[in-house]
Amino acid sequence: MNGLCVATYRAYDDKADFSKKALSIAVGLTVGSWTELPEAQKAEMEKHLGKVVSVDVHEPSGAAPGERYADIRIAYPDINFSRDLPALLVTVFGKLSMDGRIKLLDLDVSDAFASAFPGPKFGLNGVRELLEVNDRPLLMSIFKSVVGHDLANLQEQFYKQALGGVDLIKDDEILFENPLTPLEKRVEACMEAARRAREETGQKLLYAVNLTGPTSQLAANARKAIDAGANALLFNVLAYGYDVLHELSSDKSINVPIAAHPAMAGAIYPSPHYGIAASLLLGKLMRLAGADLVLFPSPYGSVVMPKEENLAVKDALLSPLHGLRTSFPVPSAGIHPGLVPLILKDFGMDVVVNAGGGIHGHPMGTAAGGQAFRQAIGAALDGTPLQEAAKQAGNEPLQAAINAWGIKEA
Amino acid sequence: MNGLCVATYRAYDDKADFSKKALSIAVGLTVGSWTELPEAQKAEMEKHLGKVVSVDVHEPSGAAPGERYADIRIAYPDINFSRDLPALLVTVFGKLSMDGRIKLLDLDVSDAFASAFPGPKFGLNGVRELLEVNDRPLLMSIFKSVVGHDLANLQEQFYKQALGGVDLIKDDEILFENPLTPLEKRVEACMEAARRAREETGQKLLYAVNLTGPTSQLAANARKAIDAGANALLFNVLAYGYDVLHELSSDKSINVPIAAHPAMAGAIYPSPHYGIAASLLLGKLMRLAGADLVLFPSPYGSVVMPKEENLAVKDALLSPLHGLRTSFPVPSAGIHPGLVPLILKDFGMDVVVNAGGGIHGHPMGTAAGGQAFRQAIGAALDGTPLQEAAKQAGNEPLQAAINAWGIKEA
Repeated sequence: MNGLCVATYRAYDDKADFSKKALSIAVGLTVGSWTELPEAQKAEMEKHLGKVVSVDVHEPSGAAPGERYADIRIAYPDINFSRDLPALLVTVFGKLSMDGRIKLLDLDVSDAFASAFPGPKFGLNGVRELLEVNDRPLLMSIFKSVVGHDLANLQEQFYKQALGGVDLIKDDEILFENPLTPLEKRVEACMEAARRAREETGQKLLYAVNLTGPTSQLAANARKAIDAGANALLFNVLAYGYDVLHELSSDKSINVPIAAHPAMAGAIYPSPHYGIAASLLLGKLMRLAGADLVLFPSPYGSVVMPKEENLAVKDALLSPLHGLRTSFPVPSAGIHPGLVPLILKDFGMDVVVNAGGGIHGHPMGTAAGGQAFRQAIGAALDGTPLQEAAKQAGNEPLQAAINAWGIKEA
Repeated sequence: MNGLCVATYRAYDDKADFSKKALSIAVGLTVGSWTELPEAQKAEMEKHLGKVVSVDVHEPSGAAPGERYADIRIAYPDINFSRDLPALLVTVFGKLSMDGRIKLLDLDVSDAFASAFPGPKFGLNGVRELLEVNDRPLLMSIFKSVVGHDLANLQEQFYKQALGGVDLIKDDEILFENPLTPLEKRVEACMEAARRAREETGQKLLYAVNLTGPTSQLAANARKAIDAGANALLFNVLAYGYDVLHELSSDKSINVPIAAHPAMAGAIYPSPHYGIAASLLLGKLMRLAGADLVLFPSPYGSVVMPKEENLAVKDALLSPLHGLRTSFPVPSAGIHPGLVPLILKDFGMDVVVNAGGGIHGHPMGTAAGGQAFRQAIGAALDGTPLQEAAKQAGNEPLQAAINAWGIKEA
């Protein structure tokens, strides 16, 4: 049973006949040539031929040079490629990516193609079940600094973060295998800190340890980490390729959630004229490849992504997609407690509030940093204005956070 | 023995204090924080701290908004990351790629880092030795159309290309594992055609068969292809990641040259403001990862790359680099025989002339297409103008090519 995978492109050209261009894509990236084929062969080749689905030319009157574009949709018979993401991407945007100003906006894969992808093993609901938290957004924190620090230091940082009531703690994505904090020792030290903190907080916690190393050793490294007690993984997907994530997430022995880090994504999504749209790069493809959580730039911080792009990433992670589990959206960077009501307004309750400086930089310390976020989340869910919640007994951490960073109106 | 890996960036900003930005990169992507560290710890952390090498601000007077930029060089202690390309890239351009308008222009890795990379197993000279051709540029041809065609068709296409005297024939990069032309059968059929053609031409030939499939099966697929007779591989590096190429090229059992295809590269190199420069993406990194030949867009065709970028890719493949073998430059797209003198002027003798339409579209047929190129190469090396060479006995194919496509003055 085959089907069609439909790619949507935005192509810029001041003069091109976009219908002709679309046809040349549909033929060129499938059967190669068509009009010159003998009629007898056409019948046989028809099932391999790409089809132009639509060409919408945008030619705003008075547009400056460079602003004329067309959104082009091409349907590719999936009989032409194997059921893996490298084959799909090379087919629809391999050579074409180099053909002038053109950006890949979206991909709608066929059910047949999607059937090769189990998607997230845990997904949003599975992560909630592991944490036994169903009634609020989750809270994630990031180590402050890791490079050059030893196990005792990381363990102490971990403990303070955990004490604040965070649900997930992630490694820094630039922490690789190193003599000071090697993978298994790091997992043991941090999970020990997690146990100690749990005695105080009574809550569960996932530690997403950074999965690194040679590609062929990643699965073994993941199992080592899991054997040492790791209950989640962080992975720099774009530095390795989607197929590597797909193989890791499809591996039954890797039975913990995988958080996808967006490292390198800024080399691909921000240009209007080139690359791959964020909603596809960090949304649909991450989910198809099996990410349980996906980090992406928030619209609030210095690492800027326009809000409509953020929300498009979120939608790609949460909307129905071939029956796959949803992936937890983790908008990251520039997050402090005063943003929580706005984050919930923008992203809803199914979001991970992820903070680094907003936790470690808290005037009362790291543990209070986490507490301030939890207090802000509680208030936002109750519909209590943060100013008011901050005055309640025990909510001094929230008050201190507001004093430090203010409140952004939702 | 550790060292420093130096990254060169171009950052655009109309107002930024670029020196401050450079410092925040150097600290933020290494030790995380510096000024607030206790003095006692600074001594210990110093060896992990990134250093600003230079900041060159370009502020042309009367520049339009958006045109102010700085070239920033940062040295990263390689003690901070493991000796693999994902770790290097995530460190120097993981998060930073998402931090506004910034492009990674170059990377100078340390000798210690480079020591983990054997580089091309054959390289330019090794490929020449396999082919026993040392005195001229090589000639590569590409199948005309492959998707939907059967073994007999591919074998016939292969034979005609080989008859024309080409040195290398590559699969189309969009030919994946499929029931019509499965890997081993395809290799057997094409190598049989190569043997038949050799009886006519007396020359050797490399067939770069497209290596595809799940990441974990690529090495096994490569061995299958080699066992079936393949004497070269084509690989869509960017769809899988540099580390996968590195592992394949480091694998002793994969004892044939690997040609790197630039599929997907256009999503990354063309924007002036984002991504990774072509000379790094398709030049230095491909060579470090072990590509024996590297295809990249030529400056002559419709898939356009400005000529200075093409030549920068070539230089990255051929200049001294930590004692690694050189990689054969293969500028591709839009090549016809009338361009040969210009190609040799631009690229020198150590280039692969790569043609598709310029061979298959020859008025006298595919074999004559290859012959026309060989005649053009011979003339260019002799310093004979193509117009003159085309009149010589036996050079009818060159004359017909010139009639069809003309000559571009070198």
